[in-house]
Amino acid sequence: MSKEEVGITVSKNEDFSEWYTQVVLKAKLADYAPVKGLIVLRPDGYSIWESLKETFDKKFRKKGIRNGFLPILIPESLLGKEQKHFAGFNPEVFWVTHSGTNEIGDRLALRPTSETLAYTLYSKWIQSWRDLPLKINFWNTALRAEIKATKPFLRTSEFLWQEGHTVHTTQEEAENEVLEILEIYQKTVEEELAIPVVTGKKSEKEKFVGAKYTTTMEAIMPDGKALQMGTSHFLAQNFSKPFEVKFADKDNVEHFAWQTSWGVSWRLIGAMIMVHGDDQGLSLPPKVAPIQVVIVPIYKNEEMKNIVISKANEIRDNIEKLGFRVHVDEREGISPGYKFNDWEMKGVPLRIELGPKDIEKESIVLAKRIEKEKTSISFNEISKISTILEEIQATMLKNAQEKAQENTFEISEYSEFKEKIERGGFIHAPWCGALECEEKIKEETGADIRVIPFNSENTTANCIFCKKTSQSIPIFARGY
Amino acid sequence: MSKEEVGITVSKNEDFSEWYTQVVLKAKLADYAPVKGLIVLRPDGYSIWESLKETFDKKFRKKGIRNGFLPILIPESLLGKEQKHFAGFNPEVFWVTHSGTNEIGDRLALRPTSETLAYTLYSKWIQSWRDLPLKINFWNTALRAEIKATKPFLRTSEFLWQEGHTVHTTQEEAENEVLEILEIYQKTVEEELAIPVVTGKKSEKEKFVGAKYTTTMEAIMPDGKALQMGTSHFLAQNFSKPFEVKFADKDNVEHFAWQTSWGVSWRLIGAMIMVHGDDQGLSLPPKVAPIQVVIVPIYKNEEMKNIVISKANEIRDNIEKLGFRVHVDEREGISPGYKFNDWEMKGVPLRIELGPKDIEKESIVLAKRIEKEKTSISFNEISKISTILEEIQATMLKNAQEKAQENTFEISEYSEFKEKIERGGFIHAPWCGALECEEKIKEETGADIRVIPFNSENTTANCIFCKKTSQSIPIFARGY
Repeated sequence: MSKEEVGITVSKNEDFSEWYTQVVLKAKLADYAPVKGLIVLRPDGYSIWESLKETFDKKFRKKGIRNGFLPILIPESLLGKEQKHFAGFNPEVFWVTHSGTNEIGDRLALRPTSETLAYTLYSKWIQSWRDLPLKINFWNTALRAEIKATKPFLRTSEFLWQEGHTVHTTQEEAENEVLEILEIYQKTVEEELAIPVVTGKKSEKEKFVGAKYTTTMEAIMPDGKALQMGTSHFLAQNFSKPFEVKFADKDNVEHFAWQTSWGVSWRLIGAMIMVHGDDQGLSLPPKVAPIQVVIVPIYKNEEMKNIVISKANEIRDNIEKLGFRVHVDEREGISPGYKFNDWEMKGVPLRIELGPKDIEKESIVLAKRIEKEKTSISFNEISKISTILEEIQATMLKNAQEKAQENTFEISEYSEFKEKIERGGFIHAPWCGALECEEKIKEETGADIRVIPFNSENTTANCIFCKKTSQSIPIFARGY
Repeated sequence: MSKEEVGITVSKNEDFSEWYTQVVLKAKLADYAPVKGLIVLRPDGYSIWESLKETFDKKFRKKGIRNGFLPILIPESLLGKEQKHFAGFNPEVFWVTHSGTNEIGDRLALRPTSETLAYTLYSKWIQSWRDLPLKINFWNTALRAEIKATKPFLRTSEFLWQEGHTVHTTQEEAENEVLEILEIYQKTVEEELAIPVVTGKKSEKEKFVGAKYTTTMEAIMPDGKALQMGTSHFLAQNFSKPFEVKFADKDNVEHFAWQTSWGVSWRLIGAMIMVHGDDQGLSLPPKVAPIQVVIVPIYKNEEMKNIVISKANEIRDNIEKLGFRVHVDEREGISPGYKFNDWEMKGVPLRIELGPKDIEKESIVLAKRIEKEKTSISFNEISKISTILEEIQATMLKNAQEKAQENTFEISEYSEFKEKIERGGFIHAPWCGALECEEKIKEETGADIRVIPFNSENTTANCIFCKKTSQSIPIFARGY
């Protein structure tokens, strides 16, 4: 890589897709694997996933959800047991046909999702009401062959995710679980990744194959396209019947159980890159940044170097004691200016600059990734770093909320709808509830119903397409 | 399951293999998946893995090792790039030949291990000495088709493990890394799982295919068979040459890098079950137990029940504040005696019994999983729990060390060797270093060289087989 090529060479506004790819590769989050459609996570990328995992695990644990492990191979016969579900995934399935030189009789699918496998086991594990609720989450990968071009984190044939599968005695309890999980998802995405989302239900057309209904959280990306950020499904008894997930109630009568499943994937990292990045590269919310504070020592000769680096290490230790992830960039033969650009490209939220003059004044210079102006604080104010990082996190969410707002529209005329959708964004528009209108709108504009927000029932407006009385006001958008 | 079948129905000494399977299934650690050779981890089993993972992650991080993610699919052409390595895994590989209905040109292997994939990437990521050392660990699964009967944790076609892959500028640094990792492995297994191991090198015959040499830690199981607990390989430049993992040194001259790889798997959990379990079932070292302390409330009527359970919850909160994982067994309609047996089978290290009489005396009854006698402590001595759990952990290691010692022998006559090996155990016996002797011994006795312990060079004895001058005194044993 020549020196010119080190930084991001295109503008986010001018070529969003190329910008995205450059940020992912140059900030060393991920790289392409030798197999088309697959990517590798480098430590800086995986660390963001680990941070999200830790947050989710804490929240899941509080709800009595525990983790388990499922193997990656599912027999074809089992995958086909819930017919609609199977039909939904069939074209994307990777098939294992041989082990060594032996042909395998019942072909093995690489898990596209684990409902069929988990529920086969659940039906063995659950006998009575005493065994319920059963709530297990699996941190694994899913495999779905992608035919379109790979987009790291957004479109890959194998992706990291979690899939939760819960079983309940009553419909009410299961439906509550669906919403509680969606709330955990929403809060985590807003609080950790600083991305605002809209929650609600998917339309019948867009729901998970096999679910009674699907709840979703959707976010708007800077290019105006919508991204599905996570889904929580109410499965009702759609799987418990074919898989015989039954329990004997207190009165010893057998019932089919009520089930939910839900998942978020590393797509969340893709959203974070798109929402917060800029022409300089990545911009990381402090809560998930692998390095939250970087210290760049500035010096001109060996004597100064020793003084500055020793002070930098002292400051690092103090910031570490506050509980933050901090790094001193001691690389030799690289100018401070180059280092500034490098850490900006990598999205580190806060940079500290420290030279001999700063040491004289007993202060450090602070440069926030999200702002141009620098400030300075004295050595004995180091504990302010904590508040500053909180402010950065809050500002990032506020900025993202404002941008999302700018890209959100309420429209009641189809002509305006068609015009608006060309520039992207979330369009709230009344809908009669008919599949036909939904399909026609998709055909003519490329926009799906992304989400029917909770409490958006509305019977006083007219369907944007057919003009009949509306049922609700969903959000339409073109999607990833 | 009928009432009689709830507990473990065979004795560990009489039918070790059946005992092991019953413990795994009845303590709800794991279950069989619908595909032959594969298992599922239930929360109590996975939790032990998570605990080990957390400990290893902390230690790896201190050594500058970070985690990453690799996809599961490796093209056949890539897997074959290091020929000996490929030949070693070829018969065990699962092959993906189709995605949906499309046939895939270059067949895809489900990763049996990731050297070939990782090093293809490393060769792109490493340009100069500045990029080294590169130390990345991957928590994933490996797939190797097993033709023999499945043994949960010990022999399965997919297994959870970690694989670390490091790259260094010098041979010395790489060889140090190999040993540092082996030391982390040994300490973790001894301190967390209370299992003593012997460390050293594998023979040429037993080393990892593609490595220059393999270091290993081996443990002796109660049935006298040896179990390989983890390996750390010095790859030298065996992979860096075919995969072109090169770096420009400070003088700008290009060199092939020096590499290591190392891994432990969920086999460690299998060892823990075998070493510590007894006829009552599982016995968990406190450090990795999902529940470290269980409180069983004892009462005869509703009034007593409320008082006892409220006190039990108070004690639970106090123990939780000490930082331990504690659970109150409030199940109704189940007798205290049944609960005692149930938690013993599940291996909970410490049980607290609490009834109205104990409340009167302001004390609790303590029953250690590893001892028959009960003791009691007063309510205001709850903080002693911490010491008691430490003692249990230490006693479990001590007991395991004693048993291992009883099963370890030093033998210099082949006739005695042949007799001894029938009863199992670790046999220290002199060896000339020749493959021929190693193979003959294996053929005639079923015993492998498990490990050549560090500092076991010895040129004063005679080879147990050919009587020529010995080179070292390895440990021979039949293995898993």
